[in-house]
Parts: sequence; structure tokens; C-alpha cells
Amino acid sequence: MNGERDGMMNPKISMITLGTHDLERAARFYEQGLGLPRLPMQGDVAFFPLQGTWLGLYGWNDLASDAGVPAAGNGFPGVALAHNVGSKDEVDHLLDQAVSAGGRLVHLGRETDWGGYSGYFADPDGHLWEVAWNPHMAIGPQDG
Amino acid sequence: MNGERDGMMNPKISMITLGTHDLERAARFYEQGLGLPRLPMQGDVAFFPLQGTWLGLYGWNDLASDAGVPAAGNGFPGVALAHNVGSKDEVDHLLDQAVSAGGRLVHLGRETDWGGYSGYFADPDGHLWEVAWNPHMAIGPQDG
Repeated sequence: MNGERDGMMNPKISMITLGTHDLERAARFYEQGLGLPRLPMQGDVAFFPLQGTWLGLYGWNDLASDAGVPAAGNGFPGVALAHNVGSKDEVDHLLDQAVSAGGRLVHLGRETDWGGYSGYFADPDGHLWEVAWNPHMAIGPQDG
Repeated sequence: MNGERDGMMNPKISMITLGTHDLERAARFYEQGLGLPRLPMQGDVAFFPLQGTWLGLYGWNDLASDAGVPAAGNGFPGVALAHNVGSKDEVDHLLDQAVSAGGRLVHLGRETDWGGYSGYFADPDGHLWEVAWNPHMAIGPQDG
């Protein structure tokens, strides 16, 4: 059973779905390029069963249509995903890897005002990922 | 330690950060309105330590500035979060709750072509959430 607690939302995000203009290219970026585990295709969605919240890839127009909103949109989407790693070197390494895989470097790794180190890449559709080392706080699903 | 496996990305999204034009309003929506657990404020970020991937709220312009991209953006952001529940009734209930909390109903719950039931709401800044019942597949962090 999966009942809501007293009508409250369960404290989880099940999946984050990214709209893509080229599902093959996006799936290749995340699967071959970054090494994320992927399920066999189900319908038109590429599912990545990650620790914690899953990642999904779906056609840009299909996702808009599913929500029932116009598909037009541009500029800053107001959303960033974050992937925390264990050291500054790993930040730089993952940014390099994302670029090798067909992503775009958006912001080089640098010291942050909160005492960590982070940079940003964009996936082939422009979705933003922060890659961060945070020495003060463990964020998100921890490694098993 | 948190080493990358052979240079590959760990299979996780640490956090999803949503840009907001009114941090107080957005935090109230998620904390009081939807009942999500929240940490004490750290800097300018509202952290919600969810099962699996965390939710973060941060100023729209601050988030763009952190990534080093222009803050202008409009229309469909190409991203949707999903929250899966255990029944059709729970889908409708959570959509109602989101509206009561200050969200906007984007798509009423309805039967889907993949054999489930889902609807969409938007948070006060327009970020899209699908609320879904999927009888075929357990997606995302499972309830403890």
C-alpha cells in the first residue's frame, strides 16, 4: 500500500521527466555517455531507474501534450538538477565527461561562496545540471 | 567516500532545484500546503530532504546567475516532476490538495493510454507536477 499520510503528500519525487527534441540522442548521452542504468524502452519513454528519484526522457511535444500545455518555450527553464560528488577533482572530471558525451560546458568548476566547489553542464537539449562538491552537507540519495 | 565508478556518474540525482519568484510563497506551498519535510533555512536555499532526491527552492535569478545563464525564460520549460501514488482516488485527492495550497490545476485526473491514471498541477511558479497512479510499474523511491 502507498497511502498518503493524513492526506499529505508522501515525501518523494518519483521521477523527473526531461523533454527532448531527439530521444535517441538524449538517451545515448545519459546511457552511453554518462553511464546511467536504463530500462528497456516502455512506450515512448526512456526510463533510468536511479537511486531515489528516477530520470525519464520523453519527447518535448509529447510531454507538453501530456500535461495539456502549449509546447512553446525558451530561455531559462527555472530548473536545475544537481549531482553531488566526493571531491573537487570529481566535479571537474564529470564536467569533462559530460562534454565528451555531447553535453555543453555552461560554467567551469569554481569555489563557491558556500564553501564548496561546483560547475554546470547542459545536456543535449539544454537541461542544466550542477555538479557539486559540498563538504558541509550530504544531499540526496547516499551511495549504497 | 563517494568515488565515481570507473569515471562513470553515480546513478543518482542529488537534488532538483526549482527557481522561484517568491521563495516564501513557494516554501509555504510545499511545506504547509503539501506537507513536505523542510530543513532550517541554509543561506538562500530552502531544502526539502525527501526520500531519494531532495527538492530545493532558490530565487529564479539567483539560480540562473549561479549557472551563469540569462534569467529570461518563458513558456514550457520541458521538465515535469512526477509523484506516484497508490490509487486513482489519491491522484484526485492530491490534485485537490495542491489547488487548495495555492497551486493551479493544469490537467484533471484521467485514464491514460498506458493503463494508468494521472493529472497535472503547477506550483505557484508554474513548475509542473504529474500525479500518477501506475498499476504496472513501481517508479522512484519506495515508501519506507
